[in-house]
Amino acid sequence: MDKMNHSSAEAEAETIEPLRYLSKGEVAAIETELLRDYRFGQQQLIEIWGQACAIAITKAYPLSSLAKKQPTVLVICGPDQNGSIGLVCARHLRMFEYEPTIYHPKRSSQSLHQDFTVQCEKMDIPFLSYLPTEVQLINDAYNLVIDAMLGPEADCANIKEPYSGILVTLKQIKTPIVSVDVPSGWDVEETSQDGINPEVLISLTAPKKCAASFSGKHFLAGRFLPYDIQKKYELNLPEYPGTDCLIEL
Amino acid sequence: MDKMNHSSAEAEAETIEPLRYLSKGEVAAIETELLRDYRFGQQQLIEIWGQACAIAITKAYPLSSLAKKQPTVLVICGPDQNGSIGLVCARHLRMFEYEPTIYHPKRSSQSLHQDFTVQCEKMDIPFLSYLPTEVQLINDAYNLVIDAMLGPEADCANIKEPYSGILVTLKQIKTPIVSVDVPSGWDVEETSQDGINPEVLISLTAPKKCAASFSGKHFLAGRFLPYDIQKKYELNLPEYPGTDCLIEL
Repeated sequence: MDKMNHSSAEAEAETIEPLRYLSKGEVAAIETELLRDYRFGQQQLIEIWGQACAIAITKAYPLSSLAKKQPTVLVICGPDQNGSIGLVCARHLRMFEYEPTIYHPKRSSQSLHQDFTVQCEKMDIPFLSYLPTEVQLINDAYNLVIDAMLGPEADCANIKEPYSGILVTLKQIKTPIVSVDVPSGWDVEETSQDGINPEVLISLTAPKKCAASFSGKHFLAGRFLPYDIQKKYELNLPEYPGTDCLIEL
Repeated sequence: MDKMNHSSAEAEAETIEPLRYLSKGEVAAIETELLRDYRFGQQQLIEIWGQACAIAITKAYPLSSLAKKQPTVLVICGPDQNGSIGLVCARHLRMFEYEPTIYHPKRSSQSLHQDFTVQCEKMDIPFLSYLPTEVQLINDAYNLVIDAMLGPEADCANIKEPYSGILVTLKQIKTPIVSVDVPSGWDVEETSQDGINPEVLISLTAPKKCAASFSGKHFLAGRFLPYDIQKKYELNLPEYPGTDCLIEL
């Protein structure tokens, strides 16, 4: 029996194709397909992704492993989808007994984004009105910084204030950074980057080209993805264990 | 150290209030508050609940425990919110390697409900066009039946076709039934019921009065519930373990 399992595992291993790393165009095409053809809702996808990010953070940094007395986490949210995911992530972290604080410099006019913001406010999650430029203040106050600023759709060659200033600060802090989907400021398709240096990356749906040489802890969250899309884009996703919504690559 | 933990656990146990079982009015009030004041979206809540139901099913009936060769599950979906939750549950069960089949006798005209339906259709989950009245056919074909028909808002004194007929069938089958939130046909507030007899009940948010004397396996799924609502309605929810979205009561 054991021998049979071995040989079938070997046979399978031979046919396993390597994980695909997506271009910017492929990311957009998959999302369009999910929304238009599969009729997923943005609200639904953002909830799925944000929850998965929070669970990834509990795996990478369990409460018991945090250096500071309080389980503080700073979640920096951008104005678009990545920021909404950060808001959902903060809400779930609160349910997991972490103490998130949100820095959300530019509120979106999109009603969905506003709804996610209200959910956090009503959960008594504090919002910072500005980010200290004094790096030591961040190092002292937070166990972790979650970078949910700029998603794969952002133009990294043209990052404006307040995000360019925040990136300068994030390059200097000693607090570990967890990036959501694409580290803010990185080119989605470039493997060598001189931007921020996250300790953890949580790729959503499938990793992007820029993640191919990422040497930190790398999670993939996107189990909801229909099999037909996985096949069409030849994603060769790994098998998620049990009912887990994410896997460490 | 061990002694200290013991005494603090005892002190805590003294102050633990019993779990609240909700009336129909309280169920509606909590949902209104979630949607209106906390700005949760229906799509978001249904996704959270449906995913939790699928995970509960994997806990109660792991793939390895199923009696039949194929991991078949029949998911019966009603026309309203309970049915939408069933559709999401079926989709997640598919991702967990079960083989769900959906029976959805009355399609809703609500666009959200239709979106959840399309998501299942595009995942190649088969839809039955009618439910066999021959009970043996159901017993032979399915390991489980998921009852996602009538939610707490349904008027159990006035159940119409096709649901009344389906309930007659469900009372006769030997296949174990898993009910979502409230077993279809049960009065939300009555503890003694002569309707269907589910083996598993998955209460959403908080259990309803009818669940107080339920003797089967009982799960509670609703970890997202803001602490202020938990306090306001004195729900006295148990502590969810780790990052689990549900707990067995």
